[in-house]
Amino acid sequence: MKKGNIYNKLNEYGRSDSYPYHMPGHKRNVDAESGLFGVLGRIGDIDITEIHDFDNLSDPDAPDGILYKAQKECADFYDVKKSFYLVNGSTVGILSAISACVPKGGKLCVARNAHKSTYNAMCIRDIEPVYMYPHLNKQFGFFEAVTAEDVEKAICSANSDCEINGGNSVAAVIVVSPTYEGRIADIKAISEVAHSYGIPLIVDEAHGAHLKFAKDADKFGISACDCGADIVIQSVHKTLPAPTQTAVMHFNSELVSLDKLEKYLHVYQTSSPSYPLMAGIEEAINYMKEFGQERLEFLKNNFVGLVATINTQCKYIEALDYRQGIQDVGKLVFSAKRAGISGIELSGMLRDKYHLELEMCVKDYCLAMFTVCDAEEAFDRMKGALLDIDRQLQEKLGNSKFDYSTKPLSSYSGNETVIPLAKAWDMSSERIFLEHAAGRVCAAFVGLYPPGTPMLVPGEPVSEENVREIMEYITLGYEVTGINEGLIKVICQ
Amino acid sequence: MKKGNIYNKLNEYGRSDSYPYHMPGHKRNVDAESGLFGVLGRIGDIDITEIHDFDNLSDPDAPDGILYKAQKECADFYDVKKSFYLVNGSTVGILSAISACVPKGGKLCVARNAHKSTYNAMCIRDIEPVYMYPHLNKQFGFFEAVTAEDVEKAICSANSDCEINGGNSVAAVIVVSPTYEGRIADIKAISEVAHSYGIPLIVDEAHGAHLKFAKDADKFGISACDCGADIVIQSVHKTLPAPTQTAVMHFNSELVSLDKLEKYLHVYQTSSPSYPLMAGIEEAINYMKEFGQERLEFLKNNFVGLVATINTQCKYIEALDYRQGIQDVGKLVFSAKRAGISGIELSGMLRDKYHLELEMCVKDYCLAMFTVCDAEEAFDRMKGALLDIDRQLQEKLGNSKFDYSTKPLSSYSGNETVIPLAKAWDMSSERIFLEHAAGRVCAAFVGLYPPGTPMLVPGEPVSEENVREIMEYITLGYEVTGINEGLIKVICQ
Repeated sequence: MKKGNIYNKLNEYGRSDSYPYHMPGHKRNVDAESGLFGVLGRIGDIDITEIHDFDNLSDPDAPDGILYKAQKECADFYDVKKSFYLVNGSTVGILSAISACVPKGGKLCVARNAHKSTYNAMCIRDIEPVYMYPHLNKQFGFFEAVTAEDVEKAICSANSDCEINGGNSVAAVIVVSPTYEGRIADIKAISEVAHSYGIPLIVDEAHGAHLKFAKDADKFGISACDCGADIVIQSVHKTLPAPTQTAVMHFNSELVSLDKLEKYLHVYQTSSPSYPLMAGIEEAINYMKEFGQERLEFLKNNFVGLVATINTQCKYIEALDYRQGIQDVGKLVFSAKRAGISGIELSGMLRDKYHLELEMCVKDYCLAMFTVCDAEEAFDRMKGALLDIDRQLQEKLGNSKFDYSTKPLSSYSGNETVIPLAKAWDMSSERIFLEHAAGRVCAAFVGLYPPGTPMLVPGEPVSEENVREIMEYITLGYEVTGINEGLIKVICQ
Repeated sequence: MKKGNIYNKLNEYGRSDSYPYHMPGHKRNVDAESGLFGVLGRIGDIDITEIHDFDNLSDPDAPDGILYKAQKECADFYDVKKSFYLVNGSTVGILSAISACVPKGGKLCVARNAHKSTYNAMCIRDIEPVYMYPHLNKQFGFFEAVTAEDVEKAICSANSDCEINGGNSVAAVIVVSPTYEGRIADIKAISEVAHSYGIPLIVDEAHGAHLKFAKDADKFGISACDCGADIVIQSVHKTLPAPTQTAVMHFNSELVSLDKLEKYLHVYQTSSPSYPLMAGIEEAINYMKEFGQERLEFLKNNFVGLVATINTQCKYIEALDYRQGIQDVGKLVFSAKRAGISGIELSGMLRDKYHLELEMCVKDYCLAMFTVCDAEEAFDRMKGALLDIDRQLQEKLGNSKFDYSTKPLSSYSGNETVIPLAKAWDMSSERIFLEHAAGRVCAAFVGLYPPGTPMLVPGEPVSEENVREIMEYITLGYEVTGINEGLIKVICQ
């Protein structure tokens, strides 16, 4: 594989005798003092600004600009009308997509376990969420993917409500797929539902940039780009070999204004994008075009093997079964709750003794991420550690039985809204002790992050049950966002 | 100088035997295939996500988190209440500051030559600009810094207008200092004016992160952090040795809600910030703490010497005089218009023959940036090239005289507004040929970028004069943003 065009051009300029009387301030002059700079010692020579012949991300030169070309190749590969490189994460894609699709005061159909950037977009754009509460996975307690029925039900109920009580009908649908835990939604069916109501579908495919690179899509799950979604946002840093903070957004709509989408994108994204980050996006896509299929097969074989080993050889540790097309091959959900061990404890064991660092853990399960960049070591070390821990548990516990029924949070079955989200977000608030908060209206997003599913959002009343559950999480050692030093933000009375 | 804490910790983790079952997808496993990746081959091993013990930029761990500590040290040095690392450029600081200071529908006192992020913030927040048109520099035609009188006049006139006609009074003032051309405003006087009206002052100090590091501030210009500004935003990548896309925001206010500012910051900034970028900010500040004073003295001596040489030895080329405390030592404004040569021509000569790449050029002048990272080569090569060009011009032109009076754009003395900015930005628009646009209402930002001072903003009528001027720029070879293939966006009639 040859290196990316952007990288090569940066490298060539860095090595030339051209002198920079332009930003960045380091002037690529950090090699001489390389002992001083860790980061610039590595990338200083390829870190430039928008100079002559290096194109401009906010206004790419067609057809010979390097950024225009790279984004065009990306669009061609993903088979969409237009692709955008993002250097402010998927966050900036979500903000732009929602701003372009939903007018101020409009309604957005959204799963409760949406990423916080979706909630943020609704808050700053005065958008009213129409929540979908997908089914809960009984084994581990996480949200399954949203279904076409969930979407249809939500749109119908919101629209008929507005026929009776006035107000806006639903303007767009946003769906996360694959979810954080790897559940892949039937985007084809969902986009048909959305389009039958004449509204666009945004897919937060932050965890699914790799799907498109499988030659036999059915074996891995079909990318939303091939299922009729209007806008698809992918964190290339999450599942592809790209630097953190990089993402792409694909536009493929007849319903959404491309002009609007671009306008908002240029609002929310820096006017000084990092060329190394952009070069990193191009290289990740190039790599996947050449090696993606082979690496995905390797990933799948090893992943499926690992799940099977855990579930056949372990007594206490259990893993979420792999189901082709339903579960992503990269997300291993597992727990030792049959041994009375919480996610945080299991994750701590793996870190301290085996030096395995997980993506996240909640009370009832842990999540380990595997990608196309994992070699056999990744699977071997995880397998070895889990079998080892299970053996020790067997020695210690013998035939003891634990009550390990999964109890999802009360808020996962639906909260009341007493003040609209965006309004509550903007109201005066005060911080009070959590134990005194029952009966007050929440002014913050409260939840575990990751995974980021909020237990409470601004405008929802805090119940006794919420207080009890949050306290329990804190006592167990989890960090609960929205709670600082025992204080929670509530709306001033 | 020892490397930054963040960098050292990343490096240590990268070298450990700890295995990452977390993002980013490259799994730091790119060394084995290092031939394939330019960018990740360089930073892959230090590029991580928010794992255990690495803190979280959206919610820093006090007091032992590395990001909390680094930002605290930054605040201590700049002598402000709180500092924020920004990885989405100064853009995200400007968006957050304006969102936190000005309510929707409110008024913001703003210089016409504000950065486009300021305009963008006003568009998405329904904010009405109260424009200040600073004096024009007669020699080159750029905007001088805003003065306290400009600010007082603008606030007074807007407030008395709202007393008569109703509406909101001015909610905040934003000022750019140093300007793109290096003009430093009297922020102390300006903040006194703003505070006398009980409103906060935001300073876009994108080009002034270095000022604070001078021991004798009067010799370089005083940082807005020391002049009573409420929020100060600095692009550390512009004047310090930090990677492109990095910036810091300082909060030092009694008038603005810190809570609100943080809330908006977390909306507009990625939830997956790049650790290498953050480490780069820390290293730039560490470097400046240790070497800043010495490097600033070096920069100043060489810069002043260069300006003097140009202005004493050149016949046709002229440079903006250096004035201590008024002009930044990093921005060399110069031109050869006395020889009838435009900025774009001069810039082209410097690039093609001498391999000197400038920051920007407009019709009447060029801008070269010098920073603390420039060695003598920077000054020698520029001096050599300009003297050489001037010599050739003398040989060629002898005693010819050219009419070189600077003619600022007509829009620089004020445009009419027929539709409020934010409303016009959001209205339906169409693209028509520029030559047919006179009489229509503009729907885009039209101007040269850089420097980014708009000739027209949404909601302003397009005049015959505007059309003529824009055509002239395009004919001269400049890229005018807002014009694509001869088409301009205007509001649908």
